[in-house]
Amino acid sequence: MSLLTVGSVAFDAIETPFGKTDRIIGGAGTYIALAASFYEKNQQICAVVGDDFPQEMLDTLESRNIDLEGLQIKEGEKSFFWSGKYHNDMNSRDTLVTELNVLENFDPIIPASYQGTEFLMLGNLSPQVQSTVIARLTTRPKLVAMDTMNFWMDIALDDLKKAISKVDLLIINDEEARQLSGEYSLLKAAKVIRKMGCKYLIIKKGEHGALLFHGDEVFFAPALPLEEVFDPTGAGDTFAGGFMGYLSSTGDISFESMKRAIIVGSALASFCCEKFGTERLTTISNEDITRRIQKFVALSSFTMNETLV
Amino acid sequence: MSLLTVGSVAFDAIETPFGKTDRIIGGAGTYIALAASFYEKNQQICAVVGDDFPQEMLDTLESRNIDLEGLQIKEGEKSFFWSGKYHNDMNSRDTLVTELNVLENFDPIIPASYQGTEFLMLGNLSPQVQSTVIARLTTRPKLVAMDTMNFWMDIALDDLKKAISKVDLLIINDEEARQLSGEYSLLKAAKVIRKMGCKYLIIKKGEHGALLFHGDEVFFAPALPLEEVFDPTGAGDTFAGGFMGYLSSTGDISFESMKRAIIVGSALASFCCEKFGTERLTTISNEDITRRIQKFVALSSFTMNETLV
Repeated sequence: MSLLTVGSVAFDAIETPFGKTDRIIGGAGTYIALAASFYEKNQQICAVVGDDFPQEMLDTLESRNIDLEGLQIKEGEKSFFWSGKYHNDMNSRDTLVTELNVLENFDPIIPASYQGTEFLMLGNLSPQVQSTVIARLTTRPKLVAMDTMNFWMDIALDDLKKAISKVDLLIINDEEARQLSGEYSLLKAAKVIRKMGCKYLIIKKGEHGALLFHGDEVFFAPALPLEEVFDPTGAGDTFAGGFMGYLSSTGDISFESMKRAIIVGSALASFCCEKFGTERLTTISNEDITRRIQKFVALSSFTMNETLV
Repeated sequence: MSLLTVGSVAFDAIETPFGKTDRIIGGAGTYIALAASFYEKNQQICAVVGDDFPQEMLDTLESRNIDLEGLQIKEGEKSFFWSGKYHNDMNSRDTLVTELNVLENFDPIIPASYQGTEFLMLGNLSPQVQSTVIARLTTRPKLVAMDTMNFWMDIALDDLKKAISKVDLLIINDEEARQLSGEYSLLKAAKVIRKMGCKYLIIKKGEHGALLFHGDEVFFAPALPLEEVFDPTGAGDTFAGGFMGYLSSTGDISFESMKRAIIVGSALASFCCEKFGTERLTTISNEDITRRIQKFVALSSFTMNETLV
């Protein structure tokens, strides 16, 4: 099948208890597309960068079968830049700098060659941009997924609810689910959010795994326990990219297939945390991912016996 | 087989965002023995209460095949009393009152009829009392497990380490594991703690499930997501009781059997949270537990396909 990702392609500067980086490649769109590329060999990206964005990274994306026709390069402008500092427990962070730059007036132009894409992943962007992308697709994709963040709940809740009502799957973290629903219990939060119109919901719990909801079904996948979380930046986007890339490569959007896609996404996210930025994602192989998936299977497999069930 | 539990049998007064109780039955030993009684029909308890403890509850324990010969009743003295208040997120609580009473000078006398017990569960008590129990058993049980809490790490760390070196399995929560090891990563914490001498380690993560470590193997079991956590008091003890009761009833202490025991313990703990104190545990049936275990299986089961592994 084919997967279109709309999301930021940008620069980050990251500080963790383990060290700090200069300006490195980041952005939700970058992580999603890189992660998806391990499975989906037919990808497109719709994004915007300034003329400061390195050609080398664009070449890397192209070499991974990611079509860049929809990647706008704005002459004389700067790419989106985010800088953040993680606290000692790595579970929370402070944003130090946000420079929207080219993202401020991002108009997501969809090239004609992108029409007919079967899977759509809307990375964290303004809900208006997300809705615009859906409106501009002439054929409804088989699965439309979106990410968002609490920032949009604070300043554009109505637009956000409209966008959610147009997608099949919302992927958010536990804190965001609680804010969006006003419910602390994730089961209750899931009920409230799914009434907003998305059939499927994934709630990511970071190091505590992820929950998938559809109809009356719930699936829980653990995160692989890591000795060291070096830098969690992009782990959520990598999860989403692995999830959508796997689904898109199979074309199977059954609940069972989505369970597998969550394991794939979790495996990829665990790699992402091992180095700064996209470094680890650009050096692993599909064999590395397979070995990690096997660890997941070992970690969470059990058999009940007749006396118990 | 047979299971001996040593632990407090006591009174609690609990306040949660959902309400508050007067003095109700509590204590680690009570929860452990009640939970274990769904599987193990040959139980003994070693504990101490004052003459204020209701005969009715003792009758309940006896009716569940729990031998009370080792339960000392101190005339003219009061039972242990704890009172606590949970915060709004139910993940943290403040202790309001701790009255040690009969626990202050608890001498764990082991009746001759208890000798030869095959499974031993040491509930949270002073590490010296825990070590004394092990020393007083003439035959080493097949599996010795213990719980503890941060209080003992603060005031009796050396005694605690000695006790840990004498048991097979330590069952603690994530916060305690971090304090005991000085490591934030639970994988690193597990390595440090297992060097203290216990072959098996369970780290409970509350609503985020539990990890079991042995040799190079790790198993993760989710907690069942609950719509409402009404009162988490005793959930950890109920988990331990379900775990040990199931293992003891099968006599099988293989890693696969321990995985099943964790699911059993998690299922029982999820019931415990639904009402104040022991109320829910005394009204459920084995059929209720079976249905909940089936939910666990549905929640966490997935199949990988050949292309992924």
